Amino acid sequence: MINIGVIGYGYWGPNIVRNFTGTKDAKVSSLADVNPAALERAHKSYPHLKTTTDYHELTISSEIDAIAIATPVFTHFEIAKNTLENGKHIFIEKPFTSSVKEAEKLIELAEKKNLKIMVDHTFLFTGAVRKIKELIDGNVLGTLYYYDSTRVNLGLFQHDVNVIWDLVPHDFSIMDYVIKEKPVAIIATGTDHFGRGLEDVAYITVYFNNNMVAHFNVNWLSPVKVRTTLIGGEKKMLVWNDVESDEKIKVYDRGVKIENREGVYNLLVNYRSGDMLSPRIDTPEALKVEAEYFIECILNNKVPINDGYSGLRVVKMLETSDKSLKNKGKFIKL
Amino acid sequence: MINIGVIGYGYWGPNIVRNFTGTKDAKVSSLADVNPAALERAHKSYPHLKTTTDYHELTISSEIDAIAIATPVFTHFEIAKNTLENGKHIFIEKPFTSSVKEAEKLIELAEKKNLKIMVDHTFLFTGAVRKIKELIDGNVLGTLYYYDSTRVNLGLFQHDVNVIWDLVPHDFSIMDYVIKEKPVAIIATGTDHFGRGLEDVAYITVYFNNNMVAHFNVNWLSPVKVRTTLIGGEKKMLVWNDVESDEKIKVYDRGVKIENREGVYNLLVNYRSGDMLSPRIDTPEALKVEAEYFIECILNNKVPINDGYSGLRVVKMLETSDKSLKNKGKFIKL
Amino acid sequence: MINIGVIGYGYWGPNIVRNFTGTKDAKVSSLADVNPAALERAHKSYPHLKTTTDYHELTISSEIDAIAIATPVFTHFEIAKNTLENGKHIFIEKPFTSSVKEAEKLIELAEKKNLKIMVDHTFLFTGAVRKIKELIDGNVLGTLYYYDSTRVNLGLFQHDVNVIWDLVPHDFSIMDYVIKEKPVAIIATGTDHFGRGLEDVAYITVYFNNNMVAHFNVNWLSPVKVRTTLIGGEKKMLVWNDVESDEKIKVYDRGVKIENREGVYNLLVNYRSGDMLSPRIDTPEALKVEAEYFIECILNNKVPINDGYSGLRVVKMLETSDKSLKNKGKFIKL
Amino acid sequence: MINIGVIGYGYWGPNIVRNFTGTKDAKVSSLADVNPAALERAHKSYPHLKTTTDYHELTISSEIDAIAIATPVFTHFEIAKNTLENGKHIFIEKPFTSSVKEAEKLIELAEKKNLKIMVDHTFLFTGAVRKIKELIDGNVLGTLYYYDSTRVNLGLFQHDVNVIWDLVPHDFSIMDYVIKEKPVAIIATGTDHFGRGLEDVAYITVYFNNNMVAHFNVNWLSPVKVRTTLIGGEKKMLVWNDVESDEKIKVYDRGVKIENREGVYNLLVNYRSGDMLSPRIDTPEALKVEAEYFIECILNNKVPINDGYSGLRVVKMLETSDKSLKNKGKFIKL
Repeated sequence: MINIGVIGYGYWGPNIVRNFTGTKDAKVSSLADVNPAALERAHKSYPHLKTTTDYHELTISSEIDAIAIATPVFTHFEIAKNTLENGKHIFIEKPFTSSVKEAEKLIELAEKKNLKIMVDHTFLFTGAVRKIKELIDGNVLGTLYYYDSTRVNLGLFQHDVNVIWDLVPHDFSIMDYVIKEKPVAIIATGTDHFGRGLEDVAYITVYFNNNMVAHFNVNWLSPVKVRTTLIGGEKKMLVWNDVESDEKIKVYDRGVKIENREGVYNLLVNYRSGDMLSPRIDTPEALKVEAEYFIECILNNKVPINDGYSGLRVVKMLETSDKSLKNKGKFIKL
Repeated sequence: MINIGVIGYGYWGPNIVRNFTGTKDAKVSSLADVNPAALERAHKSYPHLKTTTDYHELTISSEIDAIAIATPVFTHFEIAKNTLENGKHIFIEKPFTSSVKEAEKLIELAEKKNLKIMVDHTFLFTGAVRKIKELIDGNVLGTLYYYDSTRVNLGLFQHDVNVIWDLVPHDFSIMDYVIKEKPVAIIATGTDHFGRGLEDVAYITVYFNNNMVAHFNVNWLSPVKVRTTLIGGEKKMLVWNDVESDEKIKVYDRGVKIENREGVYNLLVNYRSGDMLSPRIDTPEALKVEAEYFIECILNNKVPINDGYSGLRVVKMLETSDKSLKNKGKFIKL
Repeated sequence: MINIGVIGYGYWGPNIVRNFTGTKDAKVSSLADVNPAALERAHKSYPHLKTTTDYHELTISSEIDAIAIATPVFTHFEIAKNTLENGKHIFIEKPFTSSVKEAEKLIELAEKKNLKIMVDHTFLFTGAVRKIKELIDGNVLGTLYYYDSTRVNLGLFQHDVNVIWDLVPHDFSIMDYVIKEKPVAIIATGTDHFGRGLEDVAYITVYFNNNMVAHFNVNWLSPVKVRTTLIGGEKKMLVWNDVESDEKIKVYDRGVKIENREGVYNLLVNYRSGDMLSPRIDTPEALKVEAEYFIECILNNKVPINDGYSGLRVVKMLETSDKSLKNKGKFIKL
Repeated sequence: MINIGVIGYGYWGPNIVRNFTGTKDAKVSSLADVNPAALERAHKSYPHLKTTTDYHELTISSEIDAIAIATPVFTHFEIAKNTLENGKHIFIEKPFTSSVKEAEKLIELAEKKNLKIMVDHTFLFTGAVRKIKELIDGNVLGTLYYYDSTRVNLGLFQHDVNVIWDLVPHDFSIMDYVIKEKPVAIIATGTDHFGRGLEDVAYITVYFNNNMVAHFNVNWLSPVKVRTTLIGGEKKMLVWNDVESDEKIKVYDRGVKIENREGVYNLLVNYRSGDMLSPRIDTPEALKVEAEYFIECILNNKVPINDGYSGLRVVKMLETSDKSLKNKGKFIKL
């Protein structure tokens, strides 16, 4: 039985407590949050929880095996470091850290202590993303042309990070998981409308070594919720509409074959427009699957797919995007 | 009665012939196309048409008052110049020309000769765009935050131009029409997947003097047809989905009001989420409305909203976008 | 503090326990279910609950004030009768009872004992239905022409009732709530595909005294989930799509005005096609609102909108529909 | 070369003229309409057409081989009879005639004279309906459970017929074409809201010998256009949404397998929920395909799939539906 301590009971914390509580071979014994009102709310639903406003009580506790960290990103490094130093595994909210340097230090520390880091890239545990990975790994799409994601909403304005650090971790972690090709450079544009120095609209282009390109459109100021990803391949093309409750993924047998010949009018273009298939997708709660996987990784000493290195790769792309954005869309190599 | 000659009977030419034929105070008497098969097709539907493979027969004809040019863009300048020199008004496909320089020369020539240039920015004559302009002019949206357009499809690969020159003229001309603010700089990214040197996927960010930003996502390799524009304003936000046959425009009473206070946790964000209104939109055929307007501008010596300068502004943005794209997303001032 | 006992912990029971637990001035102390496995599941989430397989322990308990009954409909009468006889209020799943006769007896008993009956017509507590009632009460739609509902799905086949008794209670209770006119006759058609004598597809027409008509299409064998209601009025027309997460209700300024003149060709029809408005709808959990309302009705001795008579009217229409269905669509007066 | 005369140039006539004009081995030489303004409109587009207000000029003309009749239904019998008596084939708008008796007489007459009757059931020539027929004929859906059609709109109120005679011919002709089972009885309900004696809302249930059932919901008073047909089969289920421009047909691998055992709780239900496939559909203009087919049937003496008997079967169902509707939903055997 893995004993989990949870630090942070704001927006996402309650989901973490609920899911680890329901997980076989795990229990949640203690909760820390700087806000006493949050602790009170938690106590109503889970009367058995030990609660505290000082997270150190959890990190030093001899009863606790692992700690789930669901606090603002700027606190991640300190809390995670303290947790690892006290010999406990960590399950940590995305983005992993505020900087590449912090991520590298935590990875190093965990390796030295032989502890697990799992970064909560929840989407990797959805039926939709798993199906996409399966389709790409099975070469159903063929050589990839582009990965084009839109994630906009009348979003929760964050206090401490811009829209890139808030929304793009989802998409970078998904892309990192499903696509084998490695990104080589980034250009990001965007703007801040409220004089906070924190952009609320951003557009990111990620270049790859072959001609593949990825693009991310994120926006906290959209009147409608859009969560659509198009993945174009030579053999098939895929649309993932995560706002739909059914038929989230559609795979189109559509494409183009181009034969270049001499002269501008001798281009031969063959268009293919066949059937569309929407595969069945299993839809258990992703965080539930991920919680079970975390326990399994600890018990069986497995390296999680969403380990510290996965978190680091995402943070590196975020950091680079942010830097490009701050420098008028400068082209920056990764 | 304005006698129209039409040059070019490929994809768009038949629509031009049909609409000018049906226009009061206009008739189409002659047609030129380098392709005899195109002329034959035209003759079946319009037995009265004089047809020729040499467009000069039309430009020098003393019977013709105006010429509609629906040929590939690289031929625009030569044909338009010849037409204007022969004292005839021009109605010309978008994009106006292949370069700013060409556009400027044609404008100068037309002014000297006191002739009309109308660039076929068809979308300006749709009910949807006219409604958007009405809403923005009436300050229904308030100060604009962003203009975000997606126009993707399994598109017709062009022989001579990339996806920017093919699709973005629609969006640049619409934005130029509905938004008063003037763009100041452009960054464009994208790629070519077929080794033609002609990009099939592109992303353009347009900066404005205030914090407004515009973004354009164009793609010839999408399995699905998307034509969506989001316009975010301080007072209202608008979604224009041109693929819908009904309820193309939705105006959302949604937004955010942010009060910055000292300290990271003292941010006060008020979210507003009210009704959505989808205004009734009239849907006559846009090209029909535009054809009538062209005749009206000639007969009453009016300056068209889509005159040569409108065409020039669009070409300038296209040229700049293309230059940025070719230079790894370089930030280029307009 | 109202002490609630809950009988039945199958599909809906967990929602009832959770919502009454979270309600001010209420607590859930005891649970009965014939299935020990259900009790065990409940105990995990709510360790404080007293559980029993004999519901009589609850109905005779002196600590319990009211009982929520979430058992199969054929058990409703017996349990409800026993509960009322023991002086406790009832909150009871839809449909209220298996027959008009049973409903009448329970109402009589409750009145004699001065106890509350609340039939769980949950939809009456959704933001959507409340908005529809507001629009109809405010005469926004004008004289009603028709009420047309489709509720189909790959549905849970019930063991003891047909699709009418399973799905139509939702729609009859909604119609009964939002429409003042009283139904006068019913015709129902449908069929059973599995030789169970329990129809899985049914179509019901309800006639009213004026020319209004209502229609209900219910189906357990649909591959897709449809929950759409159209309400046509002289002034406005409304579409309620409950499957949408946003913009559930759309009010159309569309209609027809007909002037009958002499002779078949002298009909004058004016079509009106104006704006569409999608009003903002509040979306708290309906069962939560209803649970609070039940407590409020008990504490303040109010007559619920969804009282026994409401339940009776619905059961009367169900019984009549079923009778018509069994008699080849016989026209039966209510 | 088949010389076609066209009678009637109202709503549908222009489409008939245009399509037969464009058909190989056919030409349209003459047009009759009682309304001179209609003839004038036709003359503008087709200057070569001979026009007349007296249709007899066409039926007696020795140059004309076949006549397309696009007049109101109450005139069909007289014009068709006159045409056949004068030895010409007929292509006639749906519904074929106003009564079964009329349809039978025309069929008899055509057979005696060895002439073709083609009833313009245009939908049979769409890619969607042809795909549905292919799927059903290929036993992809398995034994059929139900056929459920909704065809509603803010419709053109007809002067002389109710909504059943106006809209249901489409659906009856489609069902007659794609489904082998024969209907045995009909129940129809509905109402008229404008005191014209012509119902604008109607609901029709069609019973078959096995447990299959069909249902048709038609309405001239809907604010939105819905054209959806669900076809439930034992093996697969199909949704045809004709309002969509793409993905009109979706085939779902979803269903139910029920094993009845003794006792109410021993029902074993297996739900199947697999992939969805949206087959590619060809979308040439249906009337164009049908026009070519008419010429082919004449030239090669083939019996059309939409011959007089097809028209008769549809009229029989319409007549029966109307009779049931006028008799409070009486169950009427076919």
